[in-house]
Amino acid sequence: MDYRIEKDTMGEVKVPADKYWGAQTERSRNNFKIGDSKQTMPIEIVRGFAYLKKAAAHTNCELGVLNTEKRDLISKVCDEILEGKLDDQFPLVVWQTGSGTQSNMNTNEVIANRAHVIAGNKLGEGKTMIHPNDDVNKSQSSNDTFPTGMHIASYKMVVETTIPGVEQLRNTLDRISKDFMDVVKIGRTHLMDATPLTVGQEFSGFVSQLDHGLKALKNTLPHLAELALGGTAVGTGINTPKGYAELVAKKIAEFSGLPFISAENKFEALAAHDALVETHGALKQLAVSLMKIANDVRLLASGPRCGIGEINIPANEPGSSIMPGKVNPTQCEALTMVCAQVVGNDVAVTTGGMNGHFQLNVFKPMMAKNLLESARLIGDACVSFDVNCAVGIEPNYANIKKNLNNSLMLVTALNTHIGYDKASKIAKTAHENGTTLKEEAINLGYLTADQFDQWVKPEDMIGSLS
Amino acid sequence: MDYRIEKDTMGEVKVPADKYWGAQTERSRNNFKIGDSKQTMPIEIVRGFAYLKKAAAHTNCELGVLNTEKRDLISKVCDEILEGKLDDQFPLVVWQTGSGTQSNMNTNEVIANRAHVIAGNKLGEGKTMIHPNDDVNKSQSSNDTFPTGMHIASYKMVVETTIPGVEQLRNTLDRISKDFMDVVKIGRTHLMDATPLTVGQEFSGFVSQLDHGLKALKNTLPHLAELALGGTAVGTGINTPKGYAELVAKKIAEFSGLPFISAENKFEALAAHDALVETHGALKQLAVSLMKIANDVRLLASGPRCGIGEINIPANEPGSSIMPGKVNPTQCEALTMVCAQVVGNDVAVTTGGMNGHFQLNVFKPMMAKNLLESARLIGDACVSFDVNCAVGIEPNYANIKKNLNNSLMLVTALNTHIGYDKASKIAKTAHENGTTLKEEAINLGYLTADQFDQWVKPEDMIGSLS
Amino acid sequence: MDYRIEKDTMGEVKVPADKYWGAQTERSRNNFKIGDSKQTMPIEIVRGFAYLKKAAAHTNCELGVLNTEKRDLISKVCDEILEGKLDDQFPLVVWQTGSGTQSNMNTNEVIANRAHVIAGNKLGEGKTMIHPNDDVNKSQSSNDTFPTGMHIASYKMVVETTIPGVEQLRNTLDRISKDFMDVVKIGRTHLMDATPLTVGQEFSGFVSQLDHGLKALKNTLPHLAELALGGTAVGTGINTPKGYAELVAKKIAEFSGLPFISAENKFEALAAHDALVETHGALKQLAVSLMKIANDVRLLASGPRCGIGEINIPANEPGSSIMPGKVNPTQCEALTMVCAQVVGNDVAVTTGGMNGHFQLNVFKPMMAKNLLESARLIGDACVSFDVNCAVGIEPNYANIKKNLNNSLMLVTALNTHIGYDKASKIAKTAHENGTTLKEEAINLGYLTADQFDQWVKPEDMIGSLS
Amino acid sequence: MDYRIEKDTMGEVKVPADKYWGAQTERSRNNFKIGDSKQTMPIEIVRGFAYLKKAAAHTNCELGVLNTEKRDLISKVCDEILEGKLDDQFPLVVWQTGSGTQSNMNTNEVIANRAHVIAGNKLGEGKTMIHPNDDVNKSQSSNDTFPTGMHIASYKMVVETTIPGVEQLRNTLDRISKDFMDVVKIGRTHLMDATPLTVGQEFSGFVSQLDHGLKALKNTLPHLAELALGGTAVGTGINTPKGYAELVAKKIAEFSGLPFISAENKFEALAAHDALVETHGALKQLAVSLMKIANDVRLLASGPRCGIGEINIPANEPGSSIMPGKVNPTQCEALTMVCAQVVGNDVAVTTGGMNGHFQLNVFKPMMAKNLLESARLIGDACVSFDVNCAVGIEPNYANIKKNLNNSLMLVTALNTHIGYDKASKIAKTAHENGTTLKEEAINLGYLTADQFDQWVKPEDMIGSLS
Repeated sequence: MDYRIEKDTMGEVKVPADKYWGAQTERSRNNFKIGDSKQTMPIEIVRGFAYLKKAAAHTNCELGVLNTEKRDLISKVCDEILEGKLDDQFPLVVWQTGSGTQSNMNTNEVIANRAHVIAGNKLGEGKTMIHPNDDVNKSQSSNDTFPTGMHIASYKMVVETTIPGVEQLRNTLDRISKDFMDVVKIGRTHLMDATPLTVGQEFSGFVSQLDHGLKALKNTLPHLAELALGGTAVGTGINTPKGYAELVAKKIAEFSGLPFISAENKFEALAAHDALVETHGALKQLAVSLMKIANDVRLLASGPRCGIGEINIPANEPGSSIMPGKVNPTQCEALTMVCAQVVGNDVAVTTGGMNGHFQLNVFKPMMAKNLLESARLIGDACVSFDVNCAVGIEPNYANIKKNLNNSLMLVTALNTHIGYDKASKIAKTAHENGTTLKEEAINLGYLTADQFDQWVKPEDMIGSLS
Repeated sequence: MDYRIEKDTMGEVKVPADKYWGAQTERSRNNFKIGDSKQTMPIEIVRGFAYLKKAAAHTNCELGVLNTEKRDLISKVCDEILEGKLDDQFPLVVWQTGSGTQSNMNTNEVIANRAHVIAGNKLGEGKTMIHPNDDVNKSQSSNDTFPTGMHIASYKMVVETTIPGVEQLRNTLDRISKDFMDVVKIGRTHLMDATPLTVGQEFSGFVSQLDHGLKALKNTLPHLAELALGGTAVGTGINTPKGYAELVAKKIAEFSGLPFISAENKFEALAAHDALVETHGALKQLAVSLMKIANDVRLLASGPRCGIGEINIPANEPGSSIMPGKVNPTQCEALTMVCAQVVGNDVAVTTGGMNGHFQLNVFKPMMAKNLLESARLIGDACVSFDVNCAVGIEPNYANIKKNLNNSLMLVTALNTHIGYDKASKIAKTAHENGTTLKEEAINLGYLTADQFDQWVKPEDMIGSLS
Repeated sequence: MDYRIEKDTMGEVKVPADKYWGAQTERSRNNFKIGDSKQTMPIEIVRGFAYLKKAAAHTNCELGVLNTEKRDLISKVCDEILEGKLDDQFPLVVWQTGSGTQSNMNTNEVIANRAHVIAGNKLGEGKTMIHPNDDVNKSQSSNDTFPTGMHIASYKMVVETTIPGVEQLRNTLDRISKDFMDVVKIGRTHLMDATPLTVGQEFSGFVSQLDHGLKALKNTLPHLAELALGGTAVGTGINTPKGYAELVAKKIAEFSGLPFISAENKFEALAAHDALVETHGALKQLAVSLMKIANDVRLLASGPRCGIGEINIPANEPGSSIMPGKVNPTQCEALTMVCAQVVGNDVAVTTGGMNGHFQLNVFKPMMAKNLLESARLIGDACVSFDVNCAVGIEPNYANIKKNLNNSLMLVTALNTHIGYDKASKIAKTAHENGTTLKEEAINLGYLTADQFDQWVKPEDMIGSLS
Repeated sequence: MDYRIEKDTMGEVKVPADKYWGAQTERSRNNFKIGDSKQTMPIEIVRGFAYLKKAAAHTNCELGVLNTEKRDLISKVCDEILEGKLDDQFPLVVWQTGSGTQSNMNTNEVIANRAHVIAGNKLGEGKTMIHPNDDVNKSQSSNDTFPTGMHIASYKMVVETTIPGVEQLRNTLDRISKDFMDVVKIGRTHLMDATPLTVGQEFSGFVSQLDHGLKALKNTLPHLAELALGGTAVGTGINTPKGYAELVAKKIAEFSGLPFISAENKFEALAAHDALVETHGALKQLAVSLMKIANDVRLLASGPRCGIGEINIPANEPGSSIMPGKVNPTQCEALTMVCAQVVGNDVAVTTGGMNGHFQLNVFKPMMAKNLLESARLIGDACVSFDVNCAVGIEPNYANIKKNLNNSLMLVTALNTHIGYDKASKIAKTAHENGTTLKEEAINLGYLTADQFDQWVKPEDMIGSLS
């Protein structure tokens, strides 16, 4: 491979000749050979950096500390990054310095060198007009840029992938709930037969879970919208011009179209990432809800002949390499695996969040990676589950009817007529004898056949439908 | 011990003669000998039951399905429970049936038998006027009472213990922040010397963390205020009179003085406990914040001669059984142990939350126990940390000054005058030679002594104080 | 309440007149009002202290640094503690100093004062012959006594409660496996019908899980058997006589009857508690296994009419306060709640284990409390599950037979005769038409009725039974 | 893009013309668009499949159910997979069916089609001689191949990456421990000054942690060496020839050079993945140890002027984009981020492990992915930390000496001469007055200057060095 020589304050480094990155990026490549090299810093964070570097250039210019030529060159490269043209220029892994300094410098170096080329020069020849630290990083520190980049990336992922994905599934479940609101079926508590409800009521519980989860997730967005930029090294804003923090946040909001604001307290914004902990906590809550929903769906669909079988789900692929004709609830499985991952990621984020010291939390890349992964997995898995499974859910009327009529728990309707103790006697006797409630109710002399027919009606045991 | 005979639908059981509980409670005592017998169902849940049983009796009466005599007897016993007079009547452990049915029946039985005595009868003699199921449990099921009881208990604990405790500590930290807002000290990032900030700024980050945490916790309260009562067995409200759910929630709100409402969707309220997951997530976020704060406090207080020693904390007890005169940051240790416990409890709550099936989640007592423990521990530990440590925190001015003047990172102020590369050269040379920045700045010919004195002023490197 | 005055190096403290504890215990009572006051330091740790204090007294005497009179007095009180006579003398909570210094001093003070009384003096009158630090704590530090006490307590709990409890359940499951080894039933993968196996084979998987779990747990015992005692303040063994560490470990082994040894590296033994992390990891593995087992049992027992219902489990108590005659898998629920708690506790222990600093980990009481709780809960819950559920498990032959004969996955036996694709066609057609495999196999012309009967025999599809 | 038509039992599917995979792989690609498409099933699992498919072909041939021509063709493709020649033929993501059926079929299809081409045919033309199910998958099911593949992959990763990586770091720490065994320094407990120890002793604790961790990890290998292969669909071994399970395990052991054996109980091997839970538990223990070690290293290296600064670590890259000359403990940060990730992954693995149902656990791909990631990250991060940090650790003698002589805890040496209470008085007085122990010892009249010099010698307070 061809190389060129790049320099930083520590000396010279050989860098691949055709890459825009510089000495510090290359040092990181050499010093952190950890994990799968495909798993680089999430590209969403790189894009977050592009937004903020552009906003910083504009703000610095407007506040008189950067000229317009430099501003425009920096902006131009940032736009290229946002368009995905420079994706192969960000080779660093997550497992680097915990401040993300090296990814910040990767961005600074790529912008400086790429600007050099855009300005008509050849990569590696001559001094770049734009200095990675003095210009691209002007009025910034890794300590405020990385958290800003990760907040931008996280916020976007949550509002563009997670929320729409969950809402799509929520709407399908709501449609199912309404479509089958009057299909009466057996209820189950403790996995044991209980009093009836309708398919629609059962699914309305799922909808309510997701509604609460979405609300909880949205509650976390204001904290996530707070940007650290302007805090620079330790939160004091050293080396920033007056008015910088508010203005740069405004520009990021403008460029991204999202309601970012400058964090009121920059010391927290560098030293703690409770905003990520908070948002990930809500993602975990959604994972908890989705685990319940997916589990219920596969239990309800279990069978086809030896399970519960009260709903049918689409058959998307052969289910077994050895059992011919087998169909499995594979979308439930993908979704529940995602939920388990999110539950684990939550502990990783929590562990990172607990372990900051003094003015800086140095678990930033790990925390951001986990949040982005969880947010994306939940959004994607909900869409996949929706289009490949939920949309096709239908009641299996035959099984529903058979189960409902068999149930001993219809006896509950008698409580208010003959009391709990006698009702209990009827159910127990029918269970022991393998008979029906009606037979034993009459045998025991507690009520007449007419009374039974009048009082024990599943369709009267489901409350008011709404 | 003396016994009397009690009966339920399964037959006779011997019960201690002097206890108000009945057959089902005693069965549970015998069938679930799990864990430390001191660790019974949290008394807060028993009290939650008292609120709801009283409210149910009033509602049932108002809706015409319970007479006033029964209502008043039930209410009277509930008041005794709320006053703590019957605490020794609730012997069941958390590790029972996952619906909490046995604790619900424990309450029903105690109320029925105690009412019998209040009405002038002798315990165990004659049929009780009040039937545990048909009267005390009227219009109820364990499946809606237990989640109602645990929401009442959790809500009260959060608003009466957690939030006031955290706020008390938050206010002290805020007072410290303001008192020492102009005490300039060295900053630290990556545990390494960085640019300066003030003691007040450093503590303002802690305050901001707690403010965000309190906000996040309060955001979860509306979900926690939703009560399952009225859903009965599976969420349909079977065996409840019309209008019951809303009215009983209103009465609970009235009796408790807290803004409880009837859950809009009762199917979710029985089958999933995402509300506990949500609230515990916020408690975990507070634990993350408090871990950071307590760690920083003990690191800042480390020494007295070989550590950082920039703050002094109160000496409350001899620190060592072998090292005479040792003083330790024991309140930090209690608080961080609490935080670790809460982080663990969060996973227990999450695990319970994920594993509901169909119409009922049967991890209720475990989930409630963990939430109540976490909520209480955080509140109590914040108060303990506040009164025994935080209130006495003071800067150690001598150490602060020594560290500040020694720091090489003051060089950062030169970036905007001579550029990052030259500033870096100065710092590195001073580090290698063990000299001062000023000496090397002049030696290297980058600036004059006057310029140095004018540009490198710690007190100018801390931004604007607010 | 009556008080007497006690003193320590910090001054005077008022102590309840009738209690043996002294100034430092009382300071801790006042300074750490955190959590439920019933949840004091586990008594097993107090007993662990008694073993080690006695062993230390004997060792100190044997090595010539303590006279026999003092040795005998100390030993005598330790024996009283081991007999449970002084349980009410240890009021401190877990949430104290993270080294457990205060519980160490509680022990030292109680021993000193109780010895004073045993020697014929009156509590609080005159100087005690035994000094809490100089005599009871001789050759010791909290830093090595607390980890020693918690290792003794943990080891005992694991070998006396956890392992026997798990083994008891394992043996019942093994008996069930053997009793029903030839009862052929439908298998289920992905919750969907699969090829057959026997009830015995199914339960043999549970046995194998517990066998592996027990092996894993036993693998951790050698680490747990290592005692820190002799490391004193920081691991160097300052202020111990020559030969002390090995001799005192030998005596603890002798007094407790368990194979304790002196930790080879005392620095690790104070600064890190990876031994607890290791043992708790194995407890968590058992929790994972037990969660699977209990879930399968309740799914297999689900019904009675609308579930899977292939096994019957004992009915121990009325299952519902509203649904008469309902019976629930309550022991499964208690056990799975315990499992969820253990999974959470594992994260608490992990968090504590990660956060030691320099020569001391100060999350000791919290880590020990969680390990003891988990170890006990697993042991107790296994016994409860065993005697109240597992011993009574029986196949429901009628349901097993009905399910088996219905299953479409018996078609798998045809793969090796007609290939996967044709077998798949048969199964799909039967599923669509609601017919039997045999009918469709013949209709499709793939094989004759005789061939079907010869090739598709569930009893030939279960491999060799062992 | 060009396509060809492939078929499975569900019908036709369009597949990229130049890819070897078939219909079922393509269905999975379309049905599971979840997560980053770069994060495909770990290639180590694909290689695990290659080992087992080859071993199965050889075993089937040896047992007379596959001809030699087919055996050789299958083997040839497996060898190509093992050489990495077909890496781009495995596009499926982790978030697919929880049995990994689709990755098993991916392998089967690639082998069948690639064999077709090796045999001289053109891809997509004519019927393949090798059938993906009937030949490549002969005597197998996804249910036993996937767990076999993941055990092979996991075992290899642990013994080839994790253990060597941890051992490399352990050996460096051991060398440091020996090199600096007599460098006396201040000890620290509760982050506060304590009695002295040596640098070598301090590092010996790290070595002991890793030794225990390695032992714990190795303890888990026998369980991980158990292979499910031969259990086929549900553990019974349906459709396998006699003697198959043992022989195929023997061949896998032979081909891989690792001590794999056939799992004694195949029902467990499909239905539960406690082996992964067990191994990951040991990885988590190592993460706990490494977190402690890396934290101590960065605390000891903190400064350069305002921290503890008792060791020097290598400066590998500029530490700050804003603070010139700053050097940070970046390797500690990468390592601790890895530890946090592993702690989180442990909960994901635990969650998956808990949630199997009946004869199959369907969290397999997720569990395997997390274990492989953790095992690799720990191994890689230890090597990175070793070569870029640990090897260069050196004592900072000046700071060590200064701290040691300053410490008040040297007073502990006086306990055995003048008692704890007087020693305490000396330390407290010196602390209050900012004086030395010696001065105050003499002032208080407790001992002479000569006695002090004779009794208080740090070099005598460190026990015996070993």
